[in-house]
Amino acid sequence: MPAGLPEVAVAGLGLVGGSLARALTAAGYRVVGVDRESVRRAARRAGAVAAGAGTVERVAAADVVVLAAPPSVNRRLLRRLARVGRPGLVITDVGSVKGPIVDDAARLGLRSFVGGHAMAGSERQGFGASSADLFRGAAWWLVPAPDARATRAVRALVRTVGARPQTIDAYVHDRVVAFLSHVPQMTSWALLEAARADPVARRFLSSAGPGFRDMTRLARSPRGLWREILRENRSEVARALAAVSGRLAANQVPAPGPEERGGATARSAKRR
Amino acid sequence: MPAGLPEVAVAGLGLVGGSLARALTAAGYRVVGVDRESVRRAARRAGAVAAGAGTVERVAAADVVVLAAPPSVNRRLLRRLARVGRPGLVITDVGSVKGPIVDDAARLGLRSFVGGHAMAGSERQGFGASSADLFRGAAWWLVPAPDARATRAVRALVRTVGARPQTIDAYVHDRVVAFLSHVPQMTSWALLEAARADPVARRFLSSAGPGFRDMTRLARSPRGLWREILRENRSEVARALAAVSGRLAANQVPAPGPEERGGATARSAKRR
Repeated sequence: MPAGLPEVAVAGLGLVGGSLARALTAAGYRVVGVDRESVRRAARRAGAVAAGAGTVERVAAADVVVLAAPPSVNRRLLRRLARVGRPGLVITDVGSVKGPIVDDAARLGLRSFVGGHAMAGSERQGFGASSADLFRGAAWWLVPAPDARATRAVRALVRTVGARPQTIDAYVHDRVVAFLSHVPQMTSWALLEAARADPVARRFLSSAGPGFRDMTRLARSPRGLWREILRENRSEVARALAAVSGRLAANQVPAPGPEERGGATARSAKRR
Repeated sequence: MPAGLPEVAVAGLGLVGGSLARALTAAGYRVVGVDRESVRRAARRAGAVAAGAGTVERVAAADVVVLAAPPSVNRRLLRRLARVGRPGLVITDVGSVKGPIVDDAARLGLRSFVGGHAMAGSERQGFGASSADLFRGAAWWLVPAPDARATRAVRALVRTVGARPQTIDAYVHDRVVAFLSHVPQMTSWALLEAARADPVARRFLSSAGPGFRDMTRLARSPRGLWREILRENRSEVARALAAVSGRLAANQVPAPGPEERGGATARSAKRR
């Protein structure tokens, strides 16, 4: 790493990548954005990046490359960087699933790959939704690289954008986010879809209160991206989903027994 | 109803009853609060009520009595009012389940009972959490009374506090709120409980992002009150819960088939 601020390339200028580019540029870093031309132009106009590039190969001379595309694209970009990157190029990603890409990096011999995942976001997507403040106060999980210098470099970037770096094992991460993010996302869809599919409830959706609105906010998140995330993490998602479904069933009030009918029921229920 | 503003008694000065008392008092109504002494005193000090009463029998001379206690208590108060109330006393409630109490009113011959339910609230409880603005912009469901004059009187109160009155059948209401409120509440608990019960996820709860926080906000709601609500509406809750559980299972990504393994999978998933 040079003595000055490192040059950071961000591949994928969507909600997360765009926000990261904005925050690092605001902190004085030179940021190069990799995305299709219209997005690069928007990012340059917004002052989020100093320059743009059309392919990840063209930013392999940067100090740090951040992969901020959907998970499957990140894994493809990682393979391409492994072919052209100089030894010691620090690579990190911001994907929601860590096991597969960390395994890829090990197979590719990329000792300077740091798995990353910021616990920040919103149901919106694209560069237009990005904000330099997105990560402020958020946890940012890091799966350390074999090369400790790489981990230190990424941790510094994370702190720069106001997030809290937290070291975690890749598979522990994937188990935890199944509970804290992936199954909540599925639940949000399920609540909205079930209400929309019910022939009676669907007519009263606009009367829903703040609880329902909060619970279904995530349901507006991009489906394609999420389908990919859930596929990458399917075994941990299955574990968490079974746990949540079990709790849902356990909290259901059973059908009344014979002694429970009549006015006394409600009173005794209240006393419990 | 006299020419001036009617005198309104609110039985139960918790989050909803306290907010209603505050909003009506602010609008110039004379409001009498019924609750235990410490709560009545707090409400008087806050200027939410003009006077307090220890029993519902003592407010039977009011123009309108609003039952704002937990569901089973409201039903008990309704029976007591049926014994002492003058004919034509307008009674309404704010409970989350409408079928049982509307049936009770019919059995008791209370032709001036209007079932009511405001789609507003929060996970907080008690008079300390009440606010004159709670109902602003919210839907407020009304199950009309046989006596149209009573329905008009309650509709006027609802408009006064800034809510939107919406006429609904009691059993349609109970079906709709199972989808829009009761099962979302159960889901919020299930997400939090499952994460807390997992030996790995529980260690990382403080790292959760805004999505998880929104999805589990309702889990802080009062359990006892909710157990009673779910019990009163158990058959509609069972219907909605089955629908949501079915959607949850349907959105799960299936285990990979033999052709789906390897790098091509993620790419093809993305193209869909």
